[in-house]
Amino acid sequence: MRYCIGVDVGGTTIKFGLFSEDGHLAKKWEIPTQTEGRKEKLYADIAASVREETQKEGIALTELAGVGVGIPGPVKKDGQIGALVNLGVYDVNLDQELPAFLDGITVRAVNDANAAALGEMWQGGGKDFDSLVLLTLGTGLGCGIIESGRLVSGSFGMGGELGHIQVEMDEKEACNCGGHGCLEQYASATGIARVAKRMLDSCDTESVLCGREEITAKDVLDAAKAGDELAAASTAKSMEYLGRAMSYVSHITDPECFVIGGGVSRAGEYLLNVIREKYVSYFHVQEPQAEIRLAELGNDAGIYGAAKLILG
Amino acid sequence: MRYCIGVDVGGTTIKFGLFSEDGHLAKKWEIPTQTEGRKEKLYADIAASVREETQKEGIALTELAGVGVGIPGPVKKDGQIGALVNLGVYDVNLDQELPAFLDGITVRAVNDANAAALGEMWQGGGKDFDSLVLLTLGTGLGCGIIESGRLVSGSFGMGGELGHIQVEMDEKEACNCGGHGCLEQYASATGIARVAKRMLDSCDTESVLCGREEITAKDVLDAAKAGDELAAASTAKSMEYLGRAMSYVSHITDPECFVIGGGVSRAGEYLLNVIREKYVSYFHVQEPQAEIRLAELGNDAGIYGAAKLILG
Repeated sequence: MRYCIGVDVGGTTIKFGLFSEDGHLAKKWEIPTQTEGRKEKLYADIAASVREETQKEGIALTELAGVGVGIPGPVKKDGQIGALVNLGVYDVNLDQELPAFLDGITVRAVNDANAAALGEMWQGGGKDFDSLVLLTLGTGLGCGIIESGRLVSGSFGMGGELGHIQVEMDEKEACNCGGHGCLEQYASATGIARVAKRMLDSCDTESVLCGREEITAKDVLDAAKAGDELAAASTAKSMEYLGRAMSYVSHITDPECFVIGGGVSRAGEYLLNVIREKYVSYFHVQEPQAEIRLAELGNDAGIYGAAKLILG
Repeated sequence: MRYCIGVDVGGTTIKFGLFSEDGHLAKKWEIPTQTEGRKEKLYADIAASVREETQKEGIALTELAGVGVGIPGPVKKDGQIGALVNLGVYDVNLDQELPAFLDGITVRAVNDANAAALGEMWQGGGKDFDSLVLLTLGTGLGCGIIESGRLVSGSFGMGGELGHIQVEMDEKEACNCGGHGCLEQYASATGIARVAKRMLDSCDTESVLCGREEITAKDVLDAAKAGDELAAASTAKSMEYLGRAMSYVSHITDPECFVIGGGVSRAGEYLLNVIREKYVSYFHVQEPQAEIRLAELGNDAGIYGAAKLILG
């Protein structure tokens, strides 16, 4: 039996998974992300943790098919990563530079949203498909695209930046990116809460959300599920934008399936039904046929997908 | 020297090109499209014309690497084509059924917009790139997508149906597809003329276009280039929608280059400059880096791309 390691580098922690070739997650662990602004520190920390944990399992580095890595930034085709802004490191190339820390074993890095999409296709909500789009509704809105089994990474690191397409022309508030009317401003967890707060401020409908100091996406979705009209209208408004963006994706790469992940996806079938209704309304040439499913791997999607990069 | 044939099946004519392996178009010809509602007639006509013209050149069918075909309808991954509505034929499969008419030589069919994109990448405006999107601004708005040298055909024949994404929420008039506010309603040749007519009806600005019975996209673009304010504003409005849709494509598949083709593209650099200005305005995460170029093969793009399907 051969093994491989899937790594998911985040701003706070680096997650690791030891996988057997048949896709079984034998062990997972994590370490804090502490680059101290040096890429060599990132490489050394990853390598030391891989060595230590595989050693504990009695597995030699030579028994590993390789190390796959999901990384929070755009990865060019040659593995080059200009900047990992959140980690404060620059000119990173894990494919070429990390093997030196790991006795020369194979390393392959991709963007973390792409790794998660690959993970969900391999062992998660997208298992039945080979062309899918993973939409991660969390603090931000992430998107990973797979077409005919292959990651669509894009030419300039913009592939899957669906969170920043402009879907509203009349937005006054700025998005984190500097734009106005980005999808992320409405359909991420932050966006869902923002849309609800606005509705509360501007209308007189009674709602269980009235008078609350802080409102989260979970509050909005829980209230909507429980029959709160304002919360339901607010959710519908947010998902109207998401459904429209998904219709754009279908008219461009035409996936077999959309997989909805991230914290917001815990709202489950209720949320999927709202998304489906909005998505379908944007089709006229022919009925949309893509399925919409829930992600299944949660925070492990990244390590699964990173491992799959190596297992092929 | 080996040869291959590129075929472009249209509603009125079927175009053929005889290509040498190095991409030289040795000869081109066309025949009328007359299916009489039977796919066997389509197969027989294509086969007879290929036989006749190759024979004239002293080339045996066995010297052909194959026949590539661009077809006006969605082609599934297995070559199956449910309906060619314009030709009145159904359940077509050129890959599997046409070889029987051609002594068993290889046949490969793709959607005509995809064939044109492949042609422009191989010998036209996209020669320097391997990830590009061809936008054909004609009566309709066609779109063919190539990512890392591979056609993105999509799962349900919706891939590249960019002409029918909804870019305007307040449109009263219906698109041919039954939708309202489709990109094609603004940025195709028909759309450009429609937007100008509306502006003429609703404002008092003087324009050389005032009082004309019929207005074409060419009239609008010629007037805009000559400094007519209303025509320039109208062109800008049409290209605002196109630029926005292109920004969506960049945030999804992130091509290296957009190639603008179709009759409208004869407006040349003037048009490209308007498109560029609008496109760039929709980026905030990072500056767009995709180039925007003119198509170079005109009506021959389809036969070039169909040939390239075979030459690989």
